This record gives sequence, structure tokens and C-alpha cells, in this order.
Amino acid sequence: MDTRTGLPVVGMVGGGQLARMTHQAAIALGQSLRVLAASPDDGAALVAADTMIGDHTDLDALLRFAKGCDVVTFDHEHVPGEHIRALVDHGVTVYPGADALRHAQDKQVMRARLAELGLPVPVWRRVATISEIDEFLGAHGPAVAKAITGGYDGRGVWSVDSAADAAPLLDRGVALILEERVPLRRELAAIVARSPWGQAAAYPVVQTVQQDGICVEVLAPAPGLDEDAAVAAQELAIRIATELDVVGLLAVELFERNDGSILVNELAMRPHNSGHWTIEGARTSQFEQHLRAVLDYPLGDTGLTAPAVAMANVLGGRSDGMGIDERLHHLFAADPGARVHLYGKQFRPGRKLGHVTVLGDDMDDVRTRARRAARWLADGADEAHDGGET
Amino acid sequence: MDTRTGLPVVGMVGGGQLARMTHQAAIALGQSLRVLAASPDDGAALVAADTMIGDHTDLDALLRFAKGCDVVTFDHEHVPGEHIRALVDHGVTVYPGADALRHAQDKQVMRARLAELGLPVPVWRRVATISEIDEFLGAHGPAVAKAITGGYDGRGVWSVDSAADAAPLLDRGVALILEERVPLRRELAAIVARSPWGQAAAYPVVQTVQQDGICVEVLAPAPGLDEDAAVAAQELAIRIATELDVVGLLAVELFERNDGSILVNELAMRPHNSGHWTIEGARTSQFEQHLRAVLDYPLGDTGLTAPAVAMANVLGGRSDGMGIDERLHHLFAADPGARVHLYGKQFRPGRKLGHVTVLGDDMDDVRTRARRAARWLADGADEAHDGGET
Repeated sequence: MDTRTGLPVVGMVGGGQLARMTHQAAIALGQSLRVLAASPDDGAALVAADTMIGDHTDLDALLRFAKGCDVVTFDHEHVPGEHIRALVDHGVTVYPGADALRHAQDKQVMRARLAELGLPVPVWRRVATISEIDEFLGAHGPAVAKAITGGYDGRGVWSVDSAADAAPLLDRGVALILEERVPLRRELAAIVARSPWGQAAAYPVVQTVQQDGICVEVLAPAPGLDEDAAVAAQELAIRIATELDVVGLLAVELFERNDGSILVNELAMRPHNSGHWTIEGARTSQFEQHLRAVLDYPLGDTGLTAPAVAMANVLGGRSDGMGIDERLHHLFAADPGARVHLYGKQFRPGRKLGHVTVLGDDMDDVRTRARRAARWLADGADEAHDGGET
Repeated sequence: MDTRTGLPVVGMVGGGQLARMTHQAAIALGQSLRVLAASPDDGAALVAADTMIGDHTDLDALLRFAKGCDVVTFDHEHVPGEHIRALVDHGVTVYPGADALRHAQDKQVMRARLAELGLPVPVWRRVATISEIDEFLGAHGPAVAKAITGGYDGRGVWSVDSAADAAPLLDRGVALILEERVPLRRELAAIVARSPWGQAAAYPVVQTVQQDGICVEVLAPAPGLDEDAAVAAQELAIRIATELDVVGLLAVELFERNDGSILVNELAMRPHNSGHWTIEGARTSQFEQHLRAVLDYPLGDTGLTAPAVAMANVLGGRSDGMGIDERLHHLFAADPGARVHLYGKQFRPGRKLGHVTVLGDDMDDVRTRARRAARWLADGADEAHDGGET
């Protein structure tokens, strides 16, 4: 409790863009997010008054950070479970808890648990030897190998057509699972929030568009998804949140197969890229919702604010030519309705530097505008100027 | 320019809720607002990483603060004009400039200038003696006395039925103007933004509801205001911004008389209480728009995001009973769609502690919800529980 304001203090471990945007939401709730950042140049450290610099794998740093926090939560999944348990042993309230978070940290644990619950997942197995890989490929055809821990944004995921493809990974000691390569219509995501008291609230199901394993666009609501299928995906996400005792946000990344059936791909227990559109596109942003959930506040309205919402990520492209400030000028002149979010990061090719959200009545229109705006910020060039370059 | 981000640094003098909410907007633009606060407990100082504590009437403090800022702007009107000119002499870019801001600092200067421009203002005059007051009251009936400088939120405004009412003010040396007491239908406000380049953008005209001289509610768009009248009010505000060379936001408070004609009441050159609804209710919030204007970025879309938007201020009421955190729990349970903004202030009767915005299709509905939510946060009691207490 902040005695100056009479309002709770939420500590977020990790100082990236998720903490940065959660700080914006905390300000509206009368709070100031306490941030544990790895570096003073982290996106959230640049903006949050109450920032501590420290290592999220250092238990002493975590304990110092947690002092005076009503609840500690995360902007990433990299805090070791034993540290989370140690925080709890010291009387700190931590959401999501270690037992829940494990399912977002360890793909083998997650797959095994979801399968045990009878939930739809791709065919998978843990593989530790070439013969196990051969066996899986023989039974299920070309596969996807995933590092059990540490992967994100396309890292830690490899196509495996033959055991030889995976041999170097085994040689490097990477703990792997193999999964069938699912023929997809597209990818979806269902975000829900759940409070300690057990209240749950689901956002409209969205379509996510990936390139090289990185999310590049999110469309809300998922175009053409029928009501029954959307409700089923929301119910699936709520069931997972409940069974795993998640507190806070849960993002369930889904594969939609050609027959319309869905499979669970990944889980994240924090604000998620597939929910950035909610800042303007939903009555309650995912960032405020995460705060409300971990504080056991009643959850906010998840309804859409417009019929069609498109979000496009700004992924660092060309760093030559005009600087980001000049690009922003041009974008604002070209599209006064584009909602820009920049994360305060240094330019680096492929890095998520920000995102743009556009709201409107027509999905094709808002999607085109969001994509063009993000492309412009990333490259200082739009498709029309680009002459078919790749 | 912040070399870490490649984006400009805006400094805001004053650390109240306007700076607090401007910081939220700056974060989205990739920036971090630099704040000059009077106290570390100021609303913006609690949340902004780049806060300096200092006195806004101390030129040395202002010069230290301005170092490294691309532009300096204000959350209040209390910086002396000579200090603003001194900053400019030292090479600092300041918006709005001293010559413009003077019209928001000195009611006599403002009235004289608007009258000279032929713009509609109440009948008024400068009064320094009892006989001048008698003369005005004899000609125009019961009047309103206003302190020429320093008034806000109902302070510095007095009803004057006879010269005796104003005598103590003259005795205390308060510099005064008298204005006719205008028979009103209601009060309106027109907010516009203007950039150094000269681009202007007008928000929809709103109705403001005052109690004891303090704004308690804002309704957007102003109910029942016909299109011609709304456009005329927007054009009036743009003309004032242009004639006075305002850069940044200009809020023009208006009286609507019973015949539908309008008079200019007050001017403010910064984000304004009558524009808080824009955070959720307009495509671009007034806080982002002010930043865009002072940075000479192209201005954002001012369109409404819903047919009806109501904002109600949370004015400190009962401080006994439940604390603000518990009140917030109850409010969120009662109305999951209410958008709450708390300013991190200590409770004090009548103090603006926050505001609530509700969006929807029906003005009566959103107004009732916003008012109930604000009342609940202020008093820990709603009208239904209140049993007719005043």
C-alpha cells in the first residue's frame, strides 16, 4: 500500500514494453508500477518513477524489490520457479504462482498437462535420441522441434524433416519436444483474465498473423470466426486458466485447422502481444485487466470499442534514411487516426520497436492502414514507394 | 532529443494531474515527459521517471529544468511571463509563448483583446473604486467580480449585488473586473489544438456542468447542440487560437444564452478538465494532441469513439468509512465499463481526486453511470444509499 495515495503497489519483474504499457494503465488506477528492470535503458525504466535495476535471477534482488509491493507479477517468464516459491515463503504475494507459471516456462509440462486434461493439442513427444526422432517422423511425418524452455518470438523452434535436422540440437544439449506440423487455416489467440477469487473474463478471440515465428498483425475480432467457435475458444481458455490456477492474464495461442477445429499451441501468463489492440480496441485494456486480476479487483468490460480493430507490430527494418522522429511526422500526416505506441527501444533489425492500432468499421481498411503505418515506421518507406522490394 | 530513443523530450512545468496524464500520452509516443514538480508527492512526480523538484517562479530552476528539453510547456498558468521570455532568450523553445499565455493569465488583457477582435464577451469593465462598481451595477444589474489574476476552479470569482459586496476585495487590494451576470442556458467548451506551423484541429463541442464554480461533469458531444452552432463555436475557438498565436491546446469556456448565442467566458492554454473525456472518447486524447501540437507533429483525429461520452469529476467528499481502494473495488463490481482515472492525491474535501468516463449510445445512461461512479469514489456512498442527505 502506498501511504501517500491509499492505493496498492504492484511490482512487475521485467522492464520491457509490457511493463511500460502496464505502467500507463497503473497511472489511471492511481498507482505507479514498481519495475525491476535489467538496465536503465529498458523501455519501462525510461518512464516509470519507481524503477529498481536488478537481475531477475538473483533472489536477493527479487526480495529487495518485493518489499512494500502488495503483489509481484511479471513481464516475462524467466524468473525461476524456486525463486517465486522463495518469495512466497517470505510472505510475498506473487501472481501468477510458480505452479501455474511453470506451464508457460516448460513446454513439456504444459503439453503433458493439457493432454491429461483432455484438451486439444498437436501430437507431440519428448525426444532425447536420434532414434526417438526417427520414430516420431516415421509415424507423423515432418515435424516441429521446440526447445522445452527459453524460446520466444520464433526462437527455440525448428522445422525437422529428418533426424539429421535435429541432431545438432541434441548435440548442443537442447531439451526438445517434437510436434506434428499441423496443417493450418490460420492462428488465433484467446486472452482471458482470472482473479484469485476466481472471476474470469474473456476478450474477443483474435486472429494473429505470424512471419518467421514472430507476430506481425492481430485482427480483432477474428474475421469470419463463427460465434460458436469463438465461444468454444473462450471457454477453452477459461478452462485452462481455472485448471492451472492462473491469476492474471492468460493468452492461449491457438491453431485453427482447415476443418475449423482448434489446437492449443502456446500459453503465456502476462499481457501478450496478441492483446495490444485492447488499449484502444476494448473497453478495458489487457494491461489494466492484468492489474485488476492480480489485485483481485473485479475485472473490466472486455467488449470491443469498434467493429474492426487491427494491430501491426513495428519490427525494426531499415535503420538508414530518416530517423524515427521524422518517420513519425510523416505517418501522422498520412494517417491522423493511426494509434502509435513506441517502446523507447534502440533500432535493431527485427526487434519489436512498437505497434500501431487502427479502429474502424471495415477490417480490410483498418488492416491495410495498420500494416502501412507499421511498415512506414519500421522502414521509412511504404509499399507504394517500395517498388516490389522484399 | 533523447539519444537513447531518437525521440524528442518535452518538459512540462507543473506536476499535477494534467502532467500525470500527459506523461501517459508521452509514453505511447516513445517519450518520457520531463516534469518540474513543486513536491515529490505531486501526481505526476509519483509516476514520471524524469521529474525535477523545483519552484516554477524560480528562473534558475526553470533554466536547469529546460536544459535538454526540445520544448517546454505547462500544466498550469502560473509561470511569470518574464521568466518565459527569459527562457526564450536562453534559446529554449516554449509553447504556448508568453504573449499568448498572457491571455490565460490576466482576465483584463483577455477581455480587452477579445473585445478588440469583435468576439462575443459579456459586458465587462475594470473596477478600482466603489463608485465604478456602483456605476456598473446601476447600468447592468447584479454582476460577477473576477480577480484579474490567479483565480481557478471557482476561486477568484464572487457574486456582487451591491458595491458593499466588493468593498472587502478592494480593501484587500484584489485587482478586479466586473462582468454582467449572463442568463445562461448552460455552459459549453470548445477545445482546439494549434501547431507552430499553423495547423488547427477542433474537438467536438461539449457541455460542461459546474457546481460552485467547479466543473463536475462534461458531456460529449453537447446534447442537442445543432451542427451550425457547434461549427460556429469551433470556428470561434480556432480564430482565438490563431489571433492569439496559441501553440498547444486552447480550451475556450463558453456561455450559451437562452437564445442560443454564445459568449466567451474563460481561456486555458493547456490540457483542460473539459477535455479529459478525450482519453477514451476521442480518437486522439487531448494530452497526446497537446504534445503533438507543441512538437509541431501533424495533429491527430479528434473524432468521437462513441455516440455519447460522459465524464464526471471525483471531488473529495467523505473521508470516513471505506478507503479509496475499497471504494474502487465496489465501483468496479458495480460498473465494469466505467473508466477510472485517479490522480494519486491525498483526500481533501472538494479536491479533484480523479475522474470517471463512461461511453455508450445513450447520453442519459452514460451520464447517470459516470455521475454515480464519481459520487461513489468521492463519498463511498451512492445516491440510493444516501437517503436524501446533502
